[in-house]
Parts: sequence; structure tokens; C-alpha cells
Amino acid sequence: MSLSEFELIDRFFKSRFLENLHPAVSLGIGDDAAVLTGTAGQSLCVCTDVLVSGVHFPADGDPAEIGQRALRVNLSDLAAMGARPVCFTLGLTLAFADEEWLSRFSSGLFSAAQQFGCSLVGGDTSRGPLSISITAIGEVPSGKPVTRSGAKLGDVLYVTDCLGGGQIALRHLGFSAAEPIAKKAAPAEALQREGHRGLTRGEEEYLLTRFFRPEPRIAFAERTRNLMSSAIDVSDGLHADASHLASASGVGLRINLDKLPFAQQVQSLTSEEERVTAALYGGDDYELCFTAATTHKEQIEAAASALGLRVTAIGEVQQGKGVGLFYEGVAAPAQHRRSFDHFFTVETV
Amino acid sequence: MSLSEFELIDRFFKSRFLENLHPAVSLGIGDDAAVLTGTAGQSLCVCTDVLVSGVHFPADGDPAEIGQRALRVNLSDLAAMGARPVCFTLGLTLAFADEEWLSRFSSGLFSAAQQFGCSLVGGDTSRGPLSISITAIGEVPSGKPVTRSGAKLGDVLYVTDCLGGGQIALRHLGFSAAEPIAKKAAPAEALQREGHRGLTRGEEEYLLTRFFRPEPRIAFAERTRNLMSSAIDVSDGLHADASHLASASGVGLRINLDKLPFAQQVQSLTSEEERVTAALYGGDDYELCFTAATTHKEQIEAAASALGLRVTAIGEVQQGKGVGLFYEGVAAPAQHRRSFDHFFTVETV
Repeated sequence: MSLSEFELIDRFFKSRFLENLHPAVSLGIGDDAAVLTGTAGQSLCVCTDVLVSGVHFPADGDPAEIGQRALRVNLSDLAAMGARPVCFTLGLTLAFADEEWLSRFSSGLFSAAQQFGCSLVGGDTSRGPLSISITAIGEVPSGKPVTRSGAKLGDVLYVTDCLGGGQIALRHLGFSAAEPIAKKAAPAEALQREGHRGLTRGEEEYLLTRFFRPEPRIAFAERTRNLMSSAIDVSDGLHADASHLASASGVGLRINLDKLPFAQQVQSLTSEEERVTAALYGGDDYELCFTAATTHKEQIEAAASALGLRVTAIGEVQQGKGVGLFYEGVAAPAQHRRSFDHFFTVETV
Repeated sequence: MSLSEFELIDRFFKSRFLENLHPAVSLGIGDDAAVLTGTAGQSLCVCTDVLVSGVHFPADGDPAEIGQRALRVNLSDLAAMGARPVCFTLGLTLAFADEEWLSRFSSGLFSAAQQFGCSLVGGDTSRGPLSISITAIGEVPSGKPVTRSGAKLGDVLYVTDCLGGGQIALRHLGFSAAEPIAKKAAPAEALQREGHRGLTRGEEEYLLTRFFRPEPRIAFAERTRNLMSSAIDVSDGLHADASHLASASGVGLRINLDKLPFAQQVQSLTSEEERVTAALYGGDDYELCFTAATTHKEQIEAAASALGLRVTAIGEVQQGKGVGLFYEGVAAPAQHRRSFDHFFTVETV
């Protein structure tokens, strides 16, 4: 990059790093590395997500929304550990230093950073195909991170809010289900201006928000960290992520498909089989899937209620291994379960 | 990615994370985030570098060497803070799950990780143009990181080992100076097998090593952390990086061009003007550029000597700002200094 491009990076990123500076950050952007001096009694959680243009977001999507999504999907991983965001680093490759793109991208990124109280502390920019790599760092009381491995026999299996929205958004917003997103993507702004065939304005706004601004469940996870026995965020689809939980905990999980929570907008756009399939195999929902002892049921519901958040008991921890799917008390037939695998062909990595 | 591609990632990366596990890492690969419980009295340093195929390494380079380079350039940033590596995360995008490529890449990456005592604790893989984003985390005694901002009037300016090798490697190994690396790149293996026109075997090996295996000066930085007043690693060229030091410290720096250290292999391949230009504006050397009080001169030389490392006093901290270039005591003329800017046109970001 030319010097002027470095200057653009300084202007759009470096100049704003002092905002929301967490006390654990003792040195931020501007040296060879950021320095974190952790708070006593706290551990740090570290996670990295990569978002590639045309794979994880439409190449011509609104840069501010891409910035929102890039940070939020990382913070969702911190929420799944019960951690509170501290800071993040950004590895950004873009074809050229497009001032308009950088201005909008950084505005979305910093807006999300401000909302969740974390600051950009370093990173690297490079010329190359558009791709965003974020490493997010959060803190959690030492010994208290919520792992995937603590689920116990008899625990209840919960999810936050609603499922399937990420996948239904992909399908209805002009992002093809069968091709990489970029191929048929329309910019979010254009969608909002022109409306999208078959969607009401409310459905459109809901799906755009679900896709570009998934909600990391940080506040809920902080309140219920000590009540959860295990947690994961639903990024690859409920079936795959629940399977990870089951495997890490050495238990089986039963999921009652008739109990899965769906938003009204998703219900009006899909048949029941479509939305159950979207929830199980679609991914991109970024809700928490967690287990807790039955004795914690009231406290969990109270914590959710205080935040205006829906939580739903969708199943339980059982003996055995893997994920068993049931519908109104009956095991879903094998060919039905298998059919889910092929309904959508988007690869969400 | 398909499941089998996930399995490949598990096989090449996840299975090896327990190697070299630093005691500060309490949970590594396999959950939503890694958990670090820092050592008492230590701060953590965090830095991110992105390496894009065709920009930072030849697209068809030896994957093992690309893995080496990817980690080493990050650890060089930790060295410049006086930090000891703890762990790192990897954001990897590649066009498809090429088993041979992944096997060689991970073997180079883990070899470097083992040498420097840090382990892979998390990350993300995605389909996309080949690019590697590494976030490295190190630890340094709290309050003791070596920043860019501590240079004081009268301090001596040093560099470790030799300069210019990174840029001369680019020029002589079939990596074009005027075009992105990928355009004319030859795989390192092929170069070693066939030899390269005009290079002796020794020169070729030296340049390949300088390019693919830059040496993070971790051990030296740990020994001299308390002696350095400021430090930076030379990644963008000595002129740019010394300017960062000068600016952050609010001082001027004088560099004596006739004192710059060069390897015998670089000397035999270049005119003096070429190698001085390569050192000043070429970058990719990953040596430490640091300042220290004159009273620490003997201790610094002893620490280097104990490690078999060359350190060279190349100038001093002076009043004013920016970097002044001198040759045998005379200020380099303005048009000469400017000409350096245009000699090489590779953009190294």
C-alpha cells in the first residue's frame, strides 16, 4: 500500500482506538503489539473468525453492515464462553484503499464495538481479495468459562431467541442458497430501497437484521454463566453445534423439533419443514445453545425475562451420544432426518 | 467446507495443539474460544499479521516455508515488545482443502511454533483466496514492555544482525521487484533444485532463509528488555520503522549509512547503493531496531555475544524529529535520499 493508503487506515481505525478502552488494555494501537494487563481473578478468552467476501457476506453488501457482522459473529463466540468483550484485532485485506468503503466499514465496526464495550487494539491491513479476520478477546472470572464439555445427564437443553433466521435471510434476500453468496447478492441498501419480491417491509428488515446484525448474547451469558453447565453458539446449524456439545461432554442430546422457537416473520415465509431444516442445518443464527440443571430453570427464565430475551427449553441431556431428533414425542424417521442434510446446499463453513 | 474438509483441519491442526502448551493457556483448541489465565506479574502482548498469497509470499511457494514465515513475522513483533511467545490463533482461507498443501503448511507452522515455544490455540478456516492471518500472544513482565516511545536524547541506535536481505531475496529469487510476487514466483523447492542464475548455492540458501525464515529476536529481546529504551522490528524498511520510533518518542534519529551491517552474501550481490537502499526502503528484514543509553553498551554487546548475534550501533538519538541520514559524517544530499524512495517499487505493506 502507498503511504496515503496507510494514512487512510490511520484515519479510519487508529484515530478511534481510545474509544471504549477497557481497563485491561494498557497499550493499544500504535506499537508492535497491544499490551493487556488482565484484571485480577479474570482469565482472557481468545477467538478468531474469518469472513471472506462472497462466502460470508455479499461482495457488494453495505460496508457498514459487513463491519457490524464481522465483529458480532466473533463476540458471539465470547458469549458462548460467558465472557465479556475486552478488545479485538483486525486483519483486513482489500483490493485498494477505497475511502468510501473504509469509512462505512469502520463506522459499522466501531458502532458494534461501542455497543459491546470493546475497542480495536491492533491489526494489519494488506492489499488482496476482500477478507476480514477478527480476533476478539474477552474476560471471564478465572475457572468460570462456560465450556462445551460440562453437560450432565438430566440437564435441560435451551436456545436463546429464535432459530432459522440466518438461513432464511440467505434464501430470501437474493443470496442464492445453491451458489456462493456473491453470485446473486444485492446490496442491503438497494434491497431496503426497492423492497424484495414476496417480502413485506417488516420481514425484510427482520431478515436483514438477522443476517448482518446477529446479536451476541453477552449480557444474558454474563447473568447466567454460573447456571449453565455447557454452552456453544449456533453458527453451523443446531444439529452440528449440539453434536459438538454432546461429543465434548460425552453425553447424548435429545432435541424436540416441535419445540424449536421461530420468529413470526420466519413462520410466515416458510413451511414447518423448511424452518426446522433451516434451524438444524442452516447455521448463521448466532444464538446460544446451552444446558443447565433443572433446578436452575426459574433463575434462567428470570434472567432472560429481565433482558426481554426469549429462552426455550428444546430438549434434554440423555445417555448415549450424538443428537436424537424427536417430533411430538416420536423419533424423527431416518429418511426424514437425512433429508434435512440436502435441503439447503449453501456451505457456510 | 464439507465435513471431510473439517476433518482435515482437525487432523492437521487440532490434533497437535497440546504440543508446547504454555502454562498460561488453560483451554486451547476445541471450544468457542481459548482461555488464557496469565501468569502473575505478567502482561500479555497481542499482535496480528496478515499474509496474502502473491503479496507476502509466492502463490506457489513451498507450503512448509510459508508456514514458517507466517508465524515468524508475527513473533518478530512480540520480540520488539520484549515479550516471550505464549500462543497464537490462525485464520486460514484456502481455495480447497488441499491435503498435501495443508500437511506441508502445518508442518512448517508447527516446526516454528515448537522452536519458539508457543502453541496454536484456536482459529478459523474458510474457503477463499489463499491468505493467512495470525494473531500471536506473548507475555512480558507487567510494566516492562519495550515500546516505541522511550528513546531518549543521547541514546545509541542499534540493529540486530544484518539488513537488506529480505529485499535482495525478493529481487534475486525470481520474485519480481516491480510486480506482485506471485507473477514471477518460482517455488522454493524448484529454486533449490535447479539453482538460480547468477547465485551461488550459498547465496541462494542465505536469501531463501532470509525470506522464508526471518529470525524473531526473542531470546535477545528477553535478555536486553531492561536495557532497551525503545524498540521496533524492521518490517517496512529501516527508514520507515526508524521514523516510527522517532515520532513515537518525540525525538530525531541520526542514521550513519556507512555503518549499516550487511551479510557477505548481500555484499557480493549488490553495489553499496543498492544494499543501502534495500535496507532503508525494502523491508522484510525482521531485525530489531532499538535504542539504549550509552551506559548499557557493554551489557548489550555481551548479551548479543552470548547468543552469537551481531548487534551494530548505526546512529544515535538527537534533537529534532524524523530521521537524518549521514554517510561518513556528511548529510546525504536531498536528491540522493529521495532517489531511495523510487529504487524499488515493490509494495510490501
